[in-house]
Amino acid sequence: MRAVDIIIKKRDGGELSKEEIAFFIEHYLRDDIPDYQTSALLMAIYFQGMTFDETAELTRQMIWSGETFDLSSLAIGFPVDKHSTGGVGDKISLPLAPLAAACGVAVPMVSGRGLGHTGGTLDKLESIPGFNVALTRDQFMRQLEKIGVVMAGQTDKFVPADKRLYALRDVTGTVESIPLICASIMSKKVASGARALVMDVKTGTGAFMQTLEKSRALAKGLIGVGRVLDRPVHALITDMNQPLGRKIGNALEVIESIACLKGGGPPDVRELTLRLTAEMLLLAQVEKDRQQAYERCKEVLDSGKALEKFAQLIEAQGGDPRVTDNPALLQLAADETYFVAPRSGFVANMNCREIGNAAAVLGAGRAKTTDAIDHGVGLEMLAKLGNPVTQGEPIVRILHRKSRGLDECVRRLEAAIEIADEPPSLPPLIYETLE
Amino acid sequence: MRAVDIIIKKRDGGELSKEEIAFFIEHYLRDDIPDYQTSALLMAIYFQGMTFDETAELTRQMIWSGETFDLSSLAIGFPVDKHSTGGVGDKISLPLAPLAAACGVAVPMVSGRGLGHTGGTLDKLESIPGFNVALTRDQFMRQLEKIGVVMAGQTDKFVPADKRLYALRDVTGTVESIPLICASIMSKKVASGARALVMDVKTGTGAFMQTLEKSRALAKGLIGVGRVLDRPVHALITDMNQPLGRKIGNALEVIESIACLKGGGPPDVRELTLRLTAEMLLLAQVEKDRQQAYERCKEVLDSGKALEKFAQLIEAQGGDPRVTDNPALLQLAADETYFVAPRSGFVANMNCREIGNAAAVLGAGRAKTTDAIDHGVGLEMLAKLGNPVTQGEPIVRILHRKSRGLDECVRRLEAAIEIADEPPSLPPLIYETLE
Repeated sequence: MRAVDIIIKKRDGGELSKEEIAFFIEHYLRDDIPDYQTSALLMAIYFQGMTFDETAELTRQMIWSGETFDLSSLAIGFPVDKHSTGGVGDKISLPLAPLAAACGVAVPMVSGRGLGHTGGTLDKLESIPGFNVALTRDQFMRQLEKIGVVMAGQTDKFVPADKRLYALRDVTGTVESIPLICASIMSKKVASGARALVMDVKTGTGAFMQTLEKSRALAKGLIGVGRVLDRPVHALITDMNQPLGRKIGNALEVIESIACLKGGGPPDVRELTLRLTAEMLLLAQVEKDRQQAYERCKEVLDSGKALEKFAQLIEAQGGDPRVTDNPALLQLAADETYFVAPRSGFVANMNCREIGNAAAVLGAGRAKTTDAIDHGVGLEMLAKLGNPVTQGEPIVRILHRKSRGLDECVRRLEAAIEIADEPPSLPPLIYETLE
Repeated sequence: MRAVDIIIKKRDGGELSKEEIAFFIEHYLRDDIPDYQTSALLMAIYFQGMTFDETAELTRQMIWSGETFDLSSLAIGFPVDKHSTGGVGDKISLPLAPLAAACGVAVPMVSGRGLGHTGGTLDKLESIPGFNVALTRDQFMRQLEKIGVVMAGQTDKFVPADKRLYALRDVTGTVESIPLICASIMSKKVASGARALVMDVKTGTGAFMQTLEKSRALAKGLIGVGRVLDRPVHALITDMNQPLGRKIGNALEVIESIACLKGGGPPDVRELTLRLTAEMLLLAQVEKDRQQAYERCKEVLDSGKALEKFAQLIEAQGGDPRVTDNPALLQLAADETYFVAPRSGFVANMNCREIGNAAAVLGAGRAKTTDAIDHGVGLEMLAKLGNPVTQGEPIVRILHRKSRGLDECVRRLEAAIEIADEPPSLPPLIYETLE
């Protein structure tokens, strides 16, 4: 078997056999197949796609490159994870994980960090004093058995093939390939021991997939690959044409998540938390009916049990659980500036990606993976799409550290927020549910 | 400017600017852009193609990577080269170059070596005792001015970008891309000082492009790029569904070429030589009318002046010019075996690629570029497509060195030659002429 023949087969639209995929990945990871052949294969996959079977085999081969968590011997509920394709102000994992656990689902959640305009769950959690996301396999297992929920980063031993392939895709224009995205997501989820997955596929100006069509294709890809891998996937396609909730920035988003866990918070955060958690209950067969699952989640959320579970989680991972009672323990930046409406009218459009970037330049996000994060800075959106505003009225509260990034932040907000005479038609929060 | 943005632009079907192409090639050759980004770009080009302007710019950038021959100060005719996409038994360059020179065209011919099932002009010439194809720039120029024709290999300094890119394409499944093929061919032809080019684009089972459609696309690509580069190209699409002429193998093909230069030889070799040389006369404006150019070539060929020019060429490059009078000076292998018709009927089909491979395994060709060539071995096709044959009648004469490759050669001939009850419809020698 020769690498070039596998490249040519895919280039010409062929379906690669399991043996061919195994050969390529195995030899690539052993450095027998060089990066330049792999990048050519990735580009061929970009153009020709892969079947669910091919993608599942690629996923399996990637999983085998590293360590996996076998949760089958643990005395836990059915383990279900949730994954979002990333957005601005998307803190749903924070209320969702403890809520699902409080409903009896085991939640072995493996998350990532923010990059570019998007935030990351690990960064948000680390704004809680003491919170440790770097768990060993042993810690991960024990905590999951003990309290039913764990929120951690992947270790270096976790799907190393994905790290190598992603780094290569990033510089060769092959990131935006549905089967490659599916394999990357599914490999990490399967390796972490999840038996089912709820996907939050974002769509809109702040999303990785900006059109509904592409988001739907990704959702269907994940569901199809999950079926081959015996990891059922439910997917919601949700809006990212404006930030989710009102707060953007790490400590700010923890504060908003705690508000949600107390039965409050912005309605979109609450609704999406309930809807996504309900899917987890369905997949774990804690509930059989979608409406019942939703009602159950609402009940548990409003009972305070999810907040209690969050406090347990924080404590188990070394953080200060008192933040759930006293969010003021989270350190916010001291400087505050208001961005005001340049004219009167209705908030008609937001370039959500630019708003994410506006928060990132303050220090809330990263331009490159090695950048440090400032957990205390961020934005609070005082106006959402469709709101009427008056000229000079504050519409974004900017929490910043002296002048760091402030000018650029304001410039980006100016460019991102459009005010018009007429109220816009509002996008739905949730476009579709697929399973 | 970032390499990945250029890859993504091409991936998404954009037309690269001159600056982008220059940036990529310049930094690739300086090793600032790694192979894995280049192979991704090559695969994107494979799928999205390039305009004539893009291909011409790529060609120019490749030319600038090395030394070029500026022939403008020489007292010579208009310099025209001929290039074939390669085939089996394709020795046309040997009679054509001296014939064109004898007609007043300057012929600065830069040729290659055989690989796989195809032969190479340099290998054929080297079967003439003493013939030197490794000329310095100075020798090349002087000889061209003196006798109007030179047949040499490219030096290491000649379009080094093409060598690097070709080596990368070869292992990344990106060889079969029309714009990349065009840039590879045109860069070498322009660098060698040719002001115009006649292309012999082969089509059929022994050709690089096996369908007429693909051959036509390549011909049109070369013509289009030539127009942008101010190097007019005429292209003939010619048949490679059976070997050209009767002899395959290096010394054997020199013998057949000399026969042609004496006014004899197989009719297909004679006809194609005349037709291709006539195009060179048109491009050099030695003649203005295609029919007159053809007649002029026929006249000069039959006059013996082309043979005389060939003797001059051989002598100028250190070879023994007496071979033109006495082809027995070419050393042929002593062992001879006949491949006989397995049944009676008509030669209905030949897998020309396999016949090329059958000659190569005897030592006439190379599996890889570092293999040595045995100039004396080869095949003589005693039957051509459409010929009636009787069971047991010799249809291929095999010249071999003891048992080297003989069994495999015979097996390949068995598989390649199909005899049927009915005579086949014969392919034309020349399908189309494009300019």
